[in-house]
Amino acid sequence: MKYAIGIDLGGTNLKIGLVNKNGKVIGDKKFPTKGYKGPKPLIDKIVLETEKLIRSAKIDSDDICGIGVGVPGIVDSINGIIYNLTNISGWKNVYLKKELEKRTKLKAYVDNDVNMMAVGELYYGAAKGGKNVVCITLGTGVGGGIIIDGKLYRGSSLAAGEIGHITLNEKGPKCNCGNHGCLEVFVGNQRIIAHAIGGIESGAETSIMKLARGDLKKITPEIISAAALKGDKFAIDVWKRVGECLGIVFAGIINFLNPDMIVIGGGIAKAGDVMFSEMRKTIRKRAFKISVDKARIVQAKLGYNAGIIGAATLPMVEENVL
Amino acid sequence: MKYAIGIDLGGTNLKIGLVNKNGKVIGDKKFPTKGYKGPKPLIDKIVLETEKLIRSAKIDSDDICGIGVGVPGIVDSINGIIYNLTNISGWKNVYLKKELEKRTKLKAYVDNDVNMMAVGELYYGAAKGGKNVVCITLGTGVGGGIIIDGKLYRGSSLAAGEIGHITLNEKGPKCNCGNHGCLEVFVGNQRIIAHAIGGIESGAETSIMKLARGDLKKITPEIISAAALKGDKFAIDVWKRVGECLGIVFAGIINFLNPDMIVIGGGIAKAGDVMFSEMRKTIRKRAFKISVDKARIVQAKLGYNAGIIGAATLPMVEENVL
Repeated sequence: MKYAIGIDLGGTNLKIGLVNKNGKVIGDKKFPTKGYKGPKPLIDKIVLETEKLIRSAKIDSDDICGIGVGVPGIVDSINGIIYNLTNISGWKNVYLKKELEKRTKLKAYVDNDVNMMAVGELYYGAAKGGKNVVCITLGTGVGGGIIIDGKLYRGSSLAAGEIGHITLNEKGPKCNCGNHGCLEVFVGNQRIIAHAIGGIESGAETSIMKLARGDLKKITPEIISAAALKGDKFAIDVWKRVGECLGIVFAGIINFLNPDMIVIGGGIAKAGDVMFSEMRKTIRKRAFKISVDKARIVQAKLGYNAGIIGAATLPMVEENVL
Repeated sequence: MKYAIGIDLGGTNLKIGLVNKNGKVIGDKKFPTKGYKGPKPLIDKIVLETEKLIRSAKIDSDDICGIGVGVPGIVDSINGIIYNLTNISGWKNVYLKKELEKRTKLKAYVDNDVNMMAVGELYYGAAKGGKNVVCITLGTGVGGGIIIDGKLYRGSSLAAGEIGHITLNEKGPKCNCGNHGCLEVFVGNQRIIAHAIGGIESGAETSIMKLARGDLKKITPEIISAAALKGDKFAIDVWKRVGECLGIVFAGIINFLNPDMIVIGGGIAKAGDVMFSEMRKTIRKRAFKISVDKARIVQAKLGYNAGIIGAATLPMVEENVL
């Protein structure tokens, strides 16, 4: 068996791809998730696209070890049940594994998308050769995946990895999760944008507004990055604060878990050197030397296809293809 | 093989004991560490006491699977080298495993004392049956040990478990480790005492001073506990704050590592219900329900002999006696 199907079920798009043993995407397709009301029509579409991908690659379905699906939410990964997807309406208690296996005759694996990403990076990306690895994705939400001793670590109720919900400041702003001052509240996209808007409203000197064509609502992390790249001091400070917040939490994780690698993915990871160097500086200042020296901090490598490759990697690992 | 020798090498006392497969201490001895200048005479004493213990228990040394030594510091547990013990002078780069094996002809294991405690609690104490367990000891310092999938997890440079040095408040007081606002700075013995003294000096109404016979220097966590037990509101608040700080960090650990158990040991663990209930309340308020529901929070069970039993357990595990 040389291939697997990887599916990245996101709030905006669903990406599906056929991936080979070397982590190469042989064929793939993307379509918007919103058009499908509830799980049934979307599962129909997944089954259809799976068959199409296999057909057009002209491979035998016996050569496919399984389907992996990464979803943005908490999953019973043992039974392949999706409890709830906050960003995709109608997905509550969906027995996705059972349904996909019945209809495709392929083994199916369902897991949290950041867990999938962690496994993908471990086998094909930045975490190659890593033993104890913490992966984090930075975006609207802040997710995490943990590799222990070269294997995905899921925790005692299959819910491990929620780095975004480690408290950074006990008195910080309220988080969507109910806690106060979670990391996510300081480094999630919305917070970064709010930080910039707050500064602009207080009269900070910055080119961000110009880049956003004078519309506060058009400010994005990308625009703040573009300003920072051009030397905008205010924008640089926004990213420095993000780097510092990440550094504080990573320092704690490094002291506690002593990993050999931290992999950073997601949109904000592209923020660039300012954020990364502030993060590294903070970690070095705050964590034990013996553990910092061991912990390589790297950017995720798989990029656009990370979701597909990660989701396809899990079945290959579980079916002993790799 | 039915026995192991367990040694708890502390800053004040060294405890040594002969422990059987059921975790029972057959014989033990305690003597002050301070009397021995540097490692050489203390190792002589360890060897002597080991022989005595075996002799007086009238067992064959073939029945002993090894010696375990728990030390309060960072250790190369693979090679049994003690890098540095901040509380015992002269212990720098000591090849303890090699030395003990040469002189006793027994297999020797050297590890951090909280790692040893974690293994002991896992096999014979409060963590029995646990799979993913976080152990913490509360005292002058705050140490931690991690069990993953039923086995001691040491991390990539054998330095994992430093729960006491997870940042609780980025702007908090400076910690001995160099960081600011570590958990240890908020819940270590000295800080609890300082909190009480600060309150008394600002005129708080409390019976603590009376219990300390009017001498600020005599205030101990035990005295604050005694006051709290008698309903002293100020003393209760001191312990509530300790519980809250622990709860904040545990909530993060529960979200991140999703353990099935947290075991709390060390002197302060005896602070009682006020601290524990505030801690539990804080955890429930701050962490994900799915993970909190799974995480049992319990007090360590092995008590006075925890160090000896823990240190003896590791050789029994490693030599497949258990």
